[in-house]
Amino acid sequence: MNPLNHVGESKCSDDPYDRVTNPNGVIQLGIAENRLAMDLVKEWISDNVKASLIDSDISHLVPYHSMDGLLELKMALAAFMGQVMLESISLDPSQMIITSGATSAIETLSFCLADPGDAVLIPSPYYIGYDKNLKWRAGVEIIPVPCRSIDNFRLSISSLELAYNQAKKRGIKVRAIFLSNPSNPVGNLIDRYTMHELLDFVTEKNIHLVSDEVFAGSNHGTGEFVSIADVAHTEGFDKSRVHIIYGLSKILSLPGFRIGVICSFNENVLQTAKKYARFFSVSVPTQRLLVSMLSDVNFALKYIEIKKKRLRRMYELFVEGLEQLGINCFPSSAGYYCWVDMNNLMRSNNEKGELELWDKLLTISKINVTPGSECRCVEPGWFRICFTTITEDDIPVVMERIKRITENNKG
Amino acid sequence: MNPLNHVGESKCSDDPYDRVTNPNGVIQLGIAENRLAMDLVKEWISDNVKASLIDSDISHLVPYHSMDGLLELKMALAAFMGQVMLESISLDPSQMIITSGATSAIETLSFCLADPGDAVLIPSPYYIGYDKNLKWRAGVEIIPVPCRSIDNFRLSISSLELAYNQAKKRGIKVRAIFLSNPSNPVGNLIDRYTMHELLDFVTEKNIHLVSDEVFAGSNHGTGEFVSIADVAHTEGFDKSRVHIIYGLSKILSLPGFRIGVICSFNENVLQTAKKYARFFSVSVPTQRLLVSMLSDVNFALKYIEIKKKRLRRMYELFVEGLEQLGINCFPSSAGYYCWVDMNNLMRSNNEKGELELWDKLLTISKINVTPGSECRCVEPGWFRICFTTITEDDIPVVMERIKRITENNKG
Repeated sequence: MNPLNHVGESKCSDDPYDRVTNPNGVIQLGIAENRLAMDLVKEWISDNVKASLIDSDISHLVPYHSMDGLLELKMALAAFMGQVMLESISLDPSQMIITSGATSAIETLSFCLADPGDAVLIPSPYYIGYDKNLKWRAGVEIIPVPCRSIDNFRLSISSLELAYNQAKKRGIKVRAIFLSNPSNPVGNLIDRYTMHELLDFVTEKNIHLVSDEVFAGSNHGTGEFVSIADVAHTEGFDKSRVHIIYGLSKILSLPGFRIGVICSFNENVLQTAKKYARFFSVSVPTQRLLVSMLSDVNFALKYIEIKKKRLRRMYELFVEGLEQLGINCFPSSAGYYCWVDMNNLMRSNNEKGELELWDKLLTISKINVTPGSECRCVEPGWFRICFTTITEDDIPVVMERIKRITENNKG
Repeated sequence: MNPLNHVGESKCSDDPYDRVTNPNGVIQLGIAENRLAMDLVKEWISDNVKASLIDSDISHLVPYHSMDGLLELKMALAAFMGQVMLESISLDPSQMIITSGATSAIETLSFCLADPGDAVLIPSPYYIGYDKNLKWRAGVEIIPVPCRSIDNFRLSISSLELAYNQAKKRGIKVRAIFLSNPSNPVGNLIDRYTMHELLDFVTEKNIHLVSDEVFAGSNHGTGEFVSIADVAHTEGFDKSRVHIIYGLSKILSLPGFRIGVICSFNENVLQTAKKYARFFSVSVPTQRLLVSMLSDVNFALKYIEIKKKRLRRMYELFVEGLEQLGINCFPSSAGYYCWVDMNNLMRSNNEKGELELWDKLLTISKINVTPGSECRCVEPGWFRICFTTITEDDIPVVMERIKRITENNKG
């Protein structure tokens, strides 16, 4: 599965770029990891680890605990998410389940909402991890619902309708729509109007809506992020169809902490996910550390502000750098990546041409990126390039390396 | 599922016993959690958390990492397990997968070794969690293989053979034997001879052997614990059929840390479990803390020695206390529990009588224990009573409370 992805990862780990010690190494631009504000986390841990771990009662760290997460952590998370999303939503800790990263949150919802062989609709291009998270163990099939550049990669209800009806004709039970908002890999946002349409659609079809909002708080553009949690509260909708995924890997840039969250308005789903929590329970010391960190309002506010500033600057510099090479990006609003149109650098306008270019980027430019075809994009030539794993000083290096290909193409 | 268990747990959390603040509360003797040496862990954390978390490079804590566990942790665990088991085995870090507690290790092996609807043979009485861990999501059926008091609850190959053949006749595919050694709930050990028989059996039937050894290092009696890892190395056996489960919840009494380990000699199983690790990955700060703790040889040796001493003393005092009430225990060699014969306190010699007594123990004696029928024991009257959740001073309290029933019965 994802053999290309595997090749790229291997090259990155075998020969990792470092500005000082390995300036000719492979630059990892294939992982949506935000290292731009890691210094703030480091500082906080240095200052606070003693109070949050040592000074607490040992019986709060070591014994068995509620498998679906400490209530204190759920409360701290709910408050923090409110700050990140500018109070646009208010989450109820009793409707939250803590998971081992968003990955296990997605798998758990697959187990809760579908039986093996059932399917979910996912607007494409989509995050490549969904294939693994839904299919591998839960056995849930993915039906991609193509979004196109001509529509600014916006999801249309008519495409959903088409995909749903085709599945039904083939005797496949569609159980839910899974989508990411802010979208990964495109970086666009779903507006309120579309959300209302989506809620009407799932109500009409008697299915569920899962909104993966792990990139909430990664806005760098002008669009306003709205959580489905906000819209689902509108009178007349059956909230019990709506399930949201959050996590701290993106918002707080702590992927190594493995914290995901399921928020659901469905009592049955919550009960089932709570039972399953024994399979992905998060260690208590990590939870205690995060209770302290998230409850430190000064830290949280400072972190959010500084991260936003740095993120916006990196995005603008990166897009500008690409534009100077004649490469255009989709005008995204959020995310730690650009959605880049490199069609004009390809020798043939098809998947083969795209993968050829991907290989050149890895071997000639020595940068690892994600080709759109891995994200089930129906148009060849799009690439997801992450820009938050590097520093500002690395941007000219990346651009120089991409130039090796653009210049070569001219010649 | 396990409604009794749920009732008992609720009573314990609603009205928990505390010698000083709530001396009439419910005493939790239903969880195999060892609190006897928690003071040593507390001391170590106080002294070392700074060095293991703050002083390490932030890029070792925060970013994505290998999902199946840090190599440093696997190495430290292999060395620690060698010490616990007196060097009787040597584990290879490349054959280890770190999981979110032994629970997810068991589930993962179920997914790796069987398809939904397939079955495994499990000697009964067995740990009640197996039902959840194998059936809930992996869909694997359990065929209990009864062990009886007349055989000292030892597994016989003829019972295995019988259960296997019956399953085959019913068209059920048996994929493996799962067993616990030291056994939970009985506390006996599997000897080398039986292990050889088991390996012959799984070879002949072309199935697998999963040995759950989470209670390794909990010896308090005279028997010698032998890991299947040791025996599997014997020439002539196909090691690739053997998979072992370890964890730190019992050995190091750190259930809140959620550390389980799969050790397998099967390359396919390791590859699959490594892929699945994305669903149960352990947070890096916890792993870093444990790398330091387990690598501290002085701490490890001191911990093992003191824990053993305290465990043995508690076991002896507890068994003695019960004997003074006319209640006999199975002569176990290991574990944090006694396997107690209370048949003579029951009004009827059947499951109903057992559950009536269980209810009396909960409501009259206010102690929560596990009835044998929940562990699929075929003989009524046996109970698993854990003695490591309390202190030495609590033992007379427990005995006084059980006396309420023994006295009542006499009257």
